[in-house]
Amino acid sequence: MVSAEIISIGTELLLGQIVDTNSQFLSSELAALGIDCYFHSTVGDNPERIMQTFKLALDRADIVITTGGLGPTADDLTIECIADLFASPLILDKEALELIQRFFRQRNINMPKSNEKQALRPQGADILPNPMGTAPGVIWQLETELLTRANIINPEKTRYIITFPGVPSEMKVMWKATAHDFLSQKFGDKTVWSCELKHYGIGESALAEKYAHLLHLANPTIAPYAGTGECRLRITAKAQTKTEAQKLAEPIVNEIKNKSGILFYGLDNENLESVVGKMLIEHNMTVSFAESCTGGLASKRLTDISGSSKYTKLNVVTYSNDAKHELLHVDQKILDIEGAVSDECAKAMAQSVRQLSKADIGVSITGIAGPDGGSAEKPVGLVYFALATNDFIYSKKVTFPPSLGRDGIRYRSASEALNMIRVLLLDPKHLA
Amino acid sequence: MVSAEIISIGTELLLGQIVDTNSQFLSSELAALGIDCYFHSTVGDNPERIMQTFKLALDRADIVITTGGLGPTADDLTIECIADLFASPLILDKEALELIQRFFRQRNINMPKSNEKQALRPQGADILPNPMGTAPGVIWQLETELLTRANIINPEKTRYIITFPGVPSEMKVMWKATAHDFLSQKFGDKTVWSCELKHYGIGESALAEKYAHLLHLANPTIAPYAGTGECRLRITAKAQTKTEAQKLAEPIVNEIKNKSGILFYGLDNENLESVVGKMLIEHNMTVSFAESCTGGLASKRLTDISGSSKYTKLNVVTYSNDAKHELLHVDQKILDIEGAVSDECAKAMAQSVRQLSKADIGVSITGIAGPDGGSAEKPVGLVYFALATNDFIYSKKVTFPPSLGRDGIRYRSASEALNMIRVLLLDPKHLA
Repeated sequence: MVSAEIISIGTELLLGQIVDTNSQFLSSELAALGIDCYFHSTVGDNPERIMQTFKLALDRADIVITTGGLGPTADDLTIECIADLFASPLILDKEALELIQRFFRQRNINMPKSNEKQALRPQGADILPNPMGTAPGVIWQLETELLTRANIINPEKTRYIITFPGVPSEMKVMWKATAHDFLSQKFGDKTVWSCELKHYGIGESALAEKYAHLLHLANPTIAPYAGTGECRLRITAKAQTKTEAQKLAEPIVNEIKNKSGILFYGLDNENLESVVGKMLIEHNMTVSFAESCTGGLASKRLTDISGSSKYTKLNVVTYSNDAKHELLHVDQKILDIEGAVSDECAKAMAQSVRQLSKADIGVSITGIAGPDGGSAEKPVGLVYFALATNDFIYSKKVTFPPSLGRDGIRYRSASEALNMIRVLLLDPKHLA
Repeated sequence: MVSAEIISIGTELLLGQIVDTNSQFLSSELAALGIDCYFHSTVGDNPERIMQTFKLALDRADIVITTGGLGPTADDLTIECIADLFASPLILDKEALELIQRFFRQRNINMPKSNEKQALRPQGADILPNPMGTAPGVIWQLETELLTRANIINPEKTRYIITFPGVPSEMKVMWKATAHDFLSQKFGDKTVWSCELKHYGIGESALAEKYAHLLHLANPTIAPYAGTGECRLRITAKAQTKTEAQKLAEPIVNEIKNKSGILFYGLDNENLESVVGKMLIEHNMTVSFAESCTGGLASKRLTDISGSSKYTKLNVVTYSNDAKHELLHVDQKILDIEGAVSDECAKAMAQSVRQLSKADIGVSITGIAGPDGGSAEKPVGLVYFALATNDFIYSKKVTFPPSLGRDGIRYRSASEALNMIRVLLLDPKHLA
């Protein structure tokens, strides 16, 4: 089984100045090729530590992929370090130099002398062209003699070093144009298929317990992950072809979908807002929100989806009691006696926003997001929801833990409201 | 000089299913404490490889900080692995168990048996409380005897292991509540003071050019960072005391504030919504949004701020033409002839929402967030804004690059609207 490691090079990563998204991209690409990746490492612009990191990665893996350290400045050290590690001379690659010179010519800029350095490659390595910038990478196939020279463990096994610049857009283009096919041709005999089954209304440990009998399978593997108020089960299968891998996973996927029932809401990149949007279109229905404590977040999430204008026309954020009374005609008595954070107020808001907007479904959210404004009877985290249709009114009270914080309470409240719409459209008997 | 390493634990990271943002956060926090960080590592849910990674990190660094692998399931291995590495027994921590039980009680959920595991800690380690979830971490101070037992290099130097859950929000709260002060007290004898000067309305390279004469200073250092439609200049000074460090930075901070003028909007954790909120309270004024393409995002951001009910009472998302006409009385002729994405419509929306809400300031946003709905005259990214007071109307057209995507265009549009309010309250002559 072939394995790879990823090394991210750059002091800015160790100072926390930027997030390393390259490792995530490369990892998912390697997984799709069926190449295992057991480690990522990040190291700064220090030659000794860079070489130490290369040595360790080459000891453990067949393929070492790096990002960063290919620029023209003195602290860009990747190529020098790998040449040093294998005591291999640096060669000025004429074709690479020509490409770099052309890059500057096309922009009518004089090429700084320092950029010449970017045309250097260790003897024996091939240039990995960079169609977008001045920093090409290299692909270097390393055999026993060189590996022995650098004291790499198991030198009889061929190793590969592939270097990319740190700029994500350049790295991705170079991956797609050259490196992906190179690796796929060398090692692409086994393929991974995976999917995520998203759940709402169940915690990670309860989900893991529900599917304890599946968590020790070897192929496919099943693993639970926690999200923000939701949970995912990831099913991953390996086989010779993608179709076979998917076939292997399918019975498990179906078993989980059936057993989870209403708790399962979508796959992979779907989220509550996209699923609700799809269902509203299918039912040819519209929805309107009257929000208080969520302040527009539910409406924002609903309209995150392109095409949401088909199913939502008007949403209101009635943040004050006056706005609830004047725009939504919530009875002043309700506001005075029960308060704005009450079942009665939620119901009145949902019914009224439905009429105001002429939507099929009106949904309201009114609660205390905190950190201030809570009391003994109405603590921070208390949120009332209501959902109204032409012949139906449903309401619900949820007490979120104050420890979620203002953002957490607001996010979870918007999720809860979106989920109420999903359940209504899927199987309203669960609204009871 | 004390040094730290960060280990991220979780197979989902190696499969590229999620981006590791934790390492970036922790690195920037360590940098602010003056603690060097030379390596990050990522490892999957495999006991042998986790232990190998811990051993290497402890060989190289004084402090090893981990994220991930603290959940209740069988593939959460962090605590078991460190106990194994030092052949130290696992203890069921009664206080931690009580906190986990309380977490479930507060939610009226029966605690799954598997969550008991999260109360385990290696003998000698302290619990690092998790106020937001069920997974506490540990802080473990390791002395010569244990370090020798695990074959760690230089066992005479004390080491520290600090473990966090992988959920970023929980990790951050735990860092701020406990770990930061622990490390600051232990190692904070060389002090760093830093601040960020946030700018709106200028790009990173223009900002870097404006302050080119400062970018090579050694102490304080000045570095520009790009954000989402905004830019930050980070000033970092080192000295024996925090006060001295701050004194060192102050002249530079003041120079930049003066030179940047209206482009500078806030410090550190301030954002446009918090700055606008503070100014509205100072001016004792209220604001109301009429949003179209941003779908509630501007209202959501305004109400992200606790206490925002003081200055915003009612916001509306008039997503359809009918809603603009019926609720906001935008002239049907404007909608028919100029269209909803027009200067005229933006002005009418701002004036009307101001009247509807009785707010001092009405602000509108109407545009094309895409990816669909663009045309040759009205391309994706075209957004009109208007701001109305009792005696003043201002409007503005911005064409955002479509490459920002739907989310980017919506976010930048909400920022632009918030910034218009800021400029109005600061110096309305810039609205021209």
